This record gives sequence, C-alpha cells and structure tokens, in this order.
Amino acid sequence: MVITFLSDFGLQDDFVGTCHGVIKRIAPEVDIHLAVVDPGVGGQRRPLALRTGAGRFLVGPDNGLLIPAAEGLGGIAAAHELANPEYALDTVSRTFHGRDLFSPAAAHLAQGVALEALGPPVDPQALVRIDMPEPEIGQNRLRATVLYVDRFGNMQLNLSREHLEQADVQPGVTVELELALERYYAIAARTFADARPGDIILYEDAYRNLSIAINGGNAAELFGAVAGQEVRIHLRTP
Amino acid sequence: MVITFLSDFGLQDDFVGTCHGVIKRIAPEVDIHLAVVDPGVGGQRRPLALRTGAGRFLVGPDNGLLIPAAEGLGGIAAAHELANPEYALDTVSRTFHGRDLFSPAAAHLAQGVALEALGPPVDPQALVRIDMPEPEIGQNRLRATVLYVDRFGNMQLNLSREHLEQADVQPGVTVELELALERYYAIAARTFADARPGDIILYEDAYRNLSIAINGGNAAELFGAVAGQEVRIHLRTP
Amino acid sequence: MVITFLSDFGLQDDFVGTCHGVIKRIAPEVDIHLAVVDPGVGGQRRPLALRTGAGRFLVGPDNGLLIPAAEGLGGIAAAHELANPEYALDTVSRTFHGRDLFSPAAAHLAQGVALEALGPPVDPQALVRIDMPEPEIGQNRLRATVLYVDRFGNMQLNLSREHLEQADVQPGVTVELELALERYYAIAARTFADARPGDIILYEDAYRNLSIAINGGNAAELFGAVAGQEVRIHLRTP
Repeated sequence: MVITFLSDFGLQDDFVGTCHGVIKRIAPEVDIHLAVVDPGVGGQRRPLALRTGAGRFLVGPDNGLLIPAAEGLGGIAAAHELANPEYALDTVSRTFHGRDLFSPAAAHLAQGVALEALGPPVDPQALVRIDMPEPEIGQNRLRATVLYVDRFGNMQLNLSREHLEQADVQPGVTVELELALERYYAIAARTFADARPGDIILYEDAYRNLSIAINGGNAAELFGAVAGQEVRIHLRTP
Repeated sequence: MVITFLSDFGLQDDFVGTCHGVIKRIAPEVDIHLAVVDPGVGGQRRPLALRTGAGRFLVGPDNGLLIPAAEGLGGIAAAHELANPEYALDTVSRTFHGRDLFSPAAAHLAQGVALEALGPPVDPQALVRIDMPEPEIGQNRLRATVLYVDRFGNMQLNLSREHLEQADVQPGVTVELELALERYYAIAARTFADARPGDIILYEDAYRNLSIAINGGNAAELFGAVAGQEVRIHLRTP
Repeated sequence: MVITFLSDFGLQDDFVGTCHGVIKRIAPEVDIHLAVVDPGVGGQRRPLALRTGAGRFLVGPDNGLLIPAAEGLGGIAAAHELANPEYALDTVSRTFHGRDLFSPAAAHLAQGVALEALGPPVDPQALVRIDMPEPEIGQNRLRATVLYVDRFGNMQLNLSREHLEQADVQPGVTVELELALERYYAIAARTFADARPGDIILYEDAYRNLSIAINGGNAAELFGAVAGQEVRIHLRTP
C-alpha cells in the first residue's frame, strides 16, 4: 500500500517530513533517523550513532543536531562514535561524511549490525549541545528571538503562550512589535481565520511556539527578518 | 525492485510526481492520494476523504483541490468529512491540518480503516468547486489566461489546439502575443525542435494545453508573467 | 526497515541521491536507473535503455547523460532504442518523454520485461558522448574550467590533485586565482578546518576533483561564477 502526497509545503521546511513521520507512526516501520547538518565536517567533531530510550537509532554529527530528537524519543540510552572503518566507505573524504560515514552507518544498522559494533561508546553527558536563546519576560513586555522563518515567511519565536500570559498579554489585544528599530502593530490572534487579510498576527503555531505572520502575506519579507534576530513585543500604549 | 530517478525537472512542478504516477500505474500499488494546498486551514472549510468511481481514495481540504483528480478517476463515489477524532492526532492545531488530520486519515485508510469510519457522509454535489477561467475565441483572435508557469518558465494557457483551430490560426503561422501592454511575435509550432533558439513559440504541451515558451530560454521571466495574467493572441497583420 | 534522512543538502545537487545510492548499495535492491535531462526532447535524439557490464539497467535520452554512469558500472553491455509502443504510454507527447517513454520503459523493466523487447539494438559505439573540457597545465600555472557549482556555492573544477602536483603547486601554498579579469588569493588547503573563516580555499572535494570554496561563505556568489567559466591558477609572485 502506497500513499502519494501532494502539497504546497515545499521541501525547505520540515512540513513534508513531519507528515511522513505521522504516517509512519500509524503504520510503524521507521527505525533509523539520519540527520546531516554538518558545517564542521572534516574537523574535530565526532560522527555519532545513538540509541534512544524508545529504541530508535539516530545517526549524525556530534554538533547538537541529534539531541532534541533524542530527548523527544526517551533520551539517549547509548552513544557510539563511528570509528569502525568496516562500516564506512573504503575512502572517507574530508568534506562529505553524509556519504562516507553517516549513510553507511545507517544502512548497516538497518541491516541488523549492532550499535556497539560501529565504534567505542561515548558518554551521553559529553555530547555537544546547542544553547537555545532564552526570552526575557517583563510586565506587558517581552524580548524574544526569531528561531526560524518558514517558507511562507512565518517567523517562529522562542516564546510560548505561557510566556504571553506571564507578561499579561491577553488574546485579542493589539501589541506593538519592534524589529530592527521599526515598529508594527500586531493582533494576538488564535488563527489566520480570526484576522483580516493583511493583518499582522501573533499566534500559537502548530509546534506550540508563538509565531508572527501576515494573513495572506509574507511577514519575514516585509520585516526583512531572519533567524537569530531580536523582536520586542509590548502592549500598545493608548 | 527499486527504480532510481534523476532529472532536472525540479520539485516545484508536478513533473516528478507525474512520472512516479506512470510507474505506479504499470506496477500498481497506489491506493491513496493525499493533497494539501490549504490556505483556509483553521477556518470553516471541511476536511475530506473521497472514494472515486475507480476505487481510489483522495484525502484533503474541501476547497476544490480534489475535484479534478476525482473526475479523472471515475467521479466521486462517496465523500466523508474527517470528523472522527479517533483517526486524527490527539491534539489538532489550527494551522497544520496536513499533519494533524490529513496524514493520519490517509495512514488509517492505508491500514484498512473504512472510509465510512472517518466521519459523516457529505453530498458530493455540496463540495466546493474551483471555477477555471474561460477563454474568449474570435475570428483570428483569442483572449486567454495563464494557468500555470512551470520551472522552465513555460506558460500554460487555458487554451487547447481546438481553440486555435476555431480561431482559424494555422500551425506554422506567426501570431502576435499581447501581455501587459507589450507585444511579441510567436510561432505556432509543434515542438521546440521546429523553432530556432530564442524563438517564442506557442505549442501544444504535454498536458494537451497550449503553452508559450522561448526555445532555450525562460518565457515567464522575459514577459514578467504569472498565473492569472491575461494573454491576447491574434494573427499578425502584415 | 525504513531509514529517514534529514539534511541541509537541498535537492538541487546530487548529494541526497548519492547518499541514497550508498544506502542502497549496502542494502542492495536497486536495479534500474532512470535519468532525464533532455533539452532535445521531441527532436532527433534517440530514447535509450542500456544494460551495463554489472547487470544494471539505465534508461534515458541518447545525449551523453547515461555514459559516465554506464562506465562506472562495467561499461555498456547492450543498448536498445525505446521504439516498441507496447512499452510506452498510448499517446507520446513531443515535450515530456520522461512521462511518456522513459518512466514506462523503466517500470516495465522493473516488472521483468526483457531489454531486447523495448526496441532494436543500437551499437554502443554510436551513442552520443559529452566532451569534457581539458585543463592546460604549465609550470606553476593551470588553466581550468568550472564544471559545476553546488548549492553551497563551491565551484568544482576540471582538475585533480595530480594536476596541481604536475604544476608544482604544493599543499599549503597561496595561489592566485583569476576569474573574469579579477584576481583573488586562495590557499591550497586540505579541508575547511585548515582555513580561517572567510579564506578562499582550493581543496580536493568529495568527488576527487579540485574545488574552490570560501570557508563559511559562498564562493560562486562572490565571484559571480557559473559552470563553463574559465579559471586561471598560478603561484603567487612574491
């Protein structure tokens, strides 16, 4: 049985992969996740394979990329460095470990090779972690960071609905956004359907983060916003 | 048996998916088509699953997207609203029904769940339909609309070869195209191989629509053309 | 057993396909490669299916595209023109042979149809080949061509490490690059980790060609470089 999948999600975000994940969870046969975002390839960073508490395998570089996934799958039960040349390509280049180390390791795991055979164990506490920026929450004001811009131009912030509540910002109110010294008015809305076309909205996105969007438009393009940028939010002063 | 597929088609058009469809039709195992282009997510539009006359299942929003596919697969035999929470994710967001409603419904259908179990029936006549723009055909002149621009910049029109014949435009003649107040000469050609590099051609594309292209170039870029734009075609006056 | 694969490789290069290839080689079930880059579609070029010395099938246009793959798979054991309408779609368009000829041929081969049934044999010596540009190697100077720009902006040249050695350019030295009348200094480095951020490096890439990159940046964007462009390299004069 095959499911075809047509969408306008594009392939630049996780949207399609996330839907595949949902499908595979209901018809379960996925066991290994291979992840390669690896600017440090060829340097000192270790190549890794992990077993999670839920029994899934993760393969990728020791640069923090695998940690959030592992934490969502029951934590890291075991970590091993990919050091056994038997499970790598014959020649390992200095710039394409996705091909030469990570893909072979994932394929051998899929063929039933034991995690322990791939190389020596690594202390999970010693793995590299990524620090996520923390927001500052005040009375009627928040200072946040853009974590991600998706292909529709929606800007995900390092804020949750609970942060808004802590700052006493109520759903439905108008807030002032400050980005790169420019100010904009936005509505704390529940969904696009609550806003008029062209409205800037601050809403809880499908990942339970707050995001900034323009109803029917591209917010990041209008604001010239990129990941890492600071956003200040405060209740509009009358 | 696996078939690998390398092309320069890109993934922005249907080209690759269409070839997959051809392959799967010869080695048939596809039963469910999931389609998500859903600007109205979170609003009033219904989430749907359809069974077609040919016995295929289609899953997606009630915004007209599924209708042409259903009509090509024997019409709509049954339509059901995705209302049964048992076949959705535990929490349904307001902005990502692709993940929360449509993917689970497709996966459950693939697992053998009955269409009827997904929710109450909907009258097929009551489903939302998309109106396609109609061309105007006169003597030696046509007024058409750009339906689609593909990744090579070829511009598909809401015209067929029969429309050209109705307007008495013969293959091989030169026509005048008018787009956004600019005029261009084009050749009514059968294929790119009939034209010289740089020639603008009006040809029957692989979907049996007429398209405008530049031999070896990008027509939409030159013309600044986008879907929805009007194009006037008339026989060149000597 | 399914392996999921997340990366920032994008889909514009071969990176993801190459990793898939590595995985499939370890868990072998791939038998047919379909390749469609076909600007001559609808003209005189023949549609082909090949069997290689290693027993793999290749399907695609007779424009040189299949030859390097066939040579890497044991050479061309047999070549047949796709001329049998039984193994094509009922109607063959003039602009989308990927759908109408190549995909059906691959699918029928996958279903067990004999290569010989697809059409008459073609002499492998008569197939179209692509001439790759040859570099010029002098004492302390080389004239090369950009073969390819990948999605990170790295520029692959028609040079190998052996060419550098022939020209007496030692690893670690600084060379002068000349592109489009502009000059730049670059370091002949072994990997990105050997260079400082912003350094231009000349390194052996994962395909064993020499490439030009900027550590942490986009070389092709800075240089305005495209495939086919000439690059002169010479030892920096003190």
